[in-house]
Amino acid sequence: MTRFDEDTALTPAGDGTFGASITGRWNTLMGVNGGYMLALCTRALGEVLPFPDPLVVSGFFLRPGSVGPASVTTSIVRSGRTTAVGEASLWREGKELLRATAAFTDLAAAAANAQPPAIPPVHVPGPPDLPPPAASSGLPGGSFPGVSLSEQVEYRAGQLPGWLDGKPSGDATSECWMRFKDDRPPDVLALPLLVDAAPPPALEIGVASTTVELTVHLRARPAPGWLACRSRTRHLGGGYHEEDFEIWDSSGVLVAQSRQLAMVLK
Amino acid sequence: MTRFDEDTALTPAGDGTFGASITGRWNTLMGVNGGYMLALCTRALGEVLPFPDPLVVSGFFLRPGSVGPASVTTSIVRSGRTTAVGEASLWREGKELLRATAAFTDLAAAAANAQPPAIPPVHVPGPPDLPPPAASSGLPGGSFPGVSLSEQVEYRAGQLPGWLDGKPSGDATSECWMRFKDDRPPDVLALPLLVDAAPPPALEIGVASTTVELTVHLRARPAPGWLACRSRTRHLGGGYHEEDFEIWDSSGVLVAQSRQLAMVLK
Repeated sequence: MTRFDEDTALTPAGDGTFGASITGRWNTLMGVNGGYMLALCTRALGEVLPFPDPLVVSGFFLRPGSVGPASVTTSIVRSGRTTAVGEASLWREGKELLRATAAFTDLAAAAANAQPPAIPPVHVPGPPDLPPPAASSGLPGGSFPGVSLSEQVEYRAGQLPGWLDGKPSGDATSECWMRFKDDRPPDVLALPLLVDAAPPPALEIGVASTTVELTVHLRARPAPGWLACRSRTRHLGGGYHEEDFEIWDSSGVLVAQSRQLAMVLK
Repeated sequence: MTRFDEDTALTPAGDGTFGASITGRWNTLMGVNGGYMLALCTRALGEVLPFPDPLVVSGFFLRPGSVGPASVTTSIVRSGRTTAVGEASLWREGKELLRATAAFTDLAAAAANAQPPAIPPVHVPGPPDLPPPAASSGLPGGSFPGVSLSEQVEYRAGQLPGWLDGKPSGDATSECWMRFKDDRPPDVLALPLLVDAAPPPALEIGVASTTVELTVHLRARPAPGWLACRSRTRHLGGGYHEEDFEIWDSSGVLVAQSRQLAMVLK
């Protein structure tokens, strides 16, 4: 079993409730990664909704995560012919950490049926123009001290972030490759984690922050292989900023597009 | 009383439930505007949460709206020191139309306290570069036939959308001015409606669609006056596309940033 599947495993406890375990293997410098917690809720919703793929997931982060036994409660909001919406809460020690809502569908059927063939795809811009993974740089030493997440997810970039060397570039954009280090192929359940797994581009403008809300659009099932990622913060002010993240699969298809609202830390 | 305030008026019915009325004055060609329904839920959450301003609102559209008596049920998810999260459902004839989750805060206090003064705002790009409203074009005849929303919200643009003349430009971007025609000043409660009130830029690439989910970040309380807006669809494929929308107030401040996932109609 892969690390991701082991650490998002769920034990059915009846009535749409699942036992879970928050492990310490997906931590950032801020603690348990929000995307990991969102992936736990997304997986639980996949167990109770009658469609295979998350289409859009929105999570509100209520309290910081911590390592240990947890549970996920779910409820079905509406189940339609092609889409179903459900809600999940992640709990630990009697406190709700995350409230997530998601619509599920069958992405393969949607791609085959939903779009009129006369309308070609539009992508402005297209996938990131990265040097091949073999010609890109990984983190010095292979992972970032204190960030267990970087031991699970491999990160490579044509140019490593400037803040790593204490020299933020002033440009809150980033392009990188990612994949699970244990070679687990990416899938739609892993994407809510992966959109939150790269270093925040806001670090390049000297800002550290915490996620208030994260919305992920799942646009297609990813092909195996490296994922090409693009992230950007365009608007910082009033104590908040957004962070946009795109993930493109090895066949050049946009598979996830996310935006989070982040609160600047003093 | 203004049209917007009249049509989002709520009657407390106890236990966080409110009577409401969905009017036919905020219709698009697709029926009741989703942003109007989201504004109803946002207003109801403002009645039950202990902070004045929505900070981020996410709504999942479950069924098409229809005109008539409605109700909004609310529940408080978590109430913290500076932020509270709540959930609202809009109901009509016993069916749930919309499930919304929102975090509320005090945006004025956040702007004053949250961001380290050493970190200046960043906006890439800044506000839309529009000709002044007086030098911009309104819709021919002042409103769009069959779109009652366009009788409430005034729309002006340097260049009107090409699809209006049956000549879509092929570029899914748009910049425009908006304001309530009855001179109601914009506020944070109106912004969830207004981010969904302009013609969709995807019409410029020949695509009509319906909203699956809409997330709105409220970044500041708007100053009175015209609102400068920018909208864009960057990624269309597999039967879905996103739509991003920004609203800047008359003092040049970004007050709302939204993204919706839309499903292409055949």
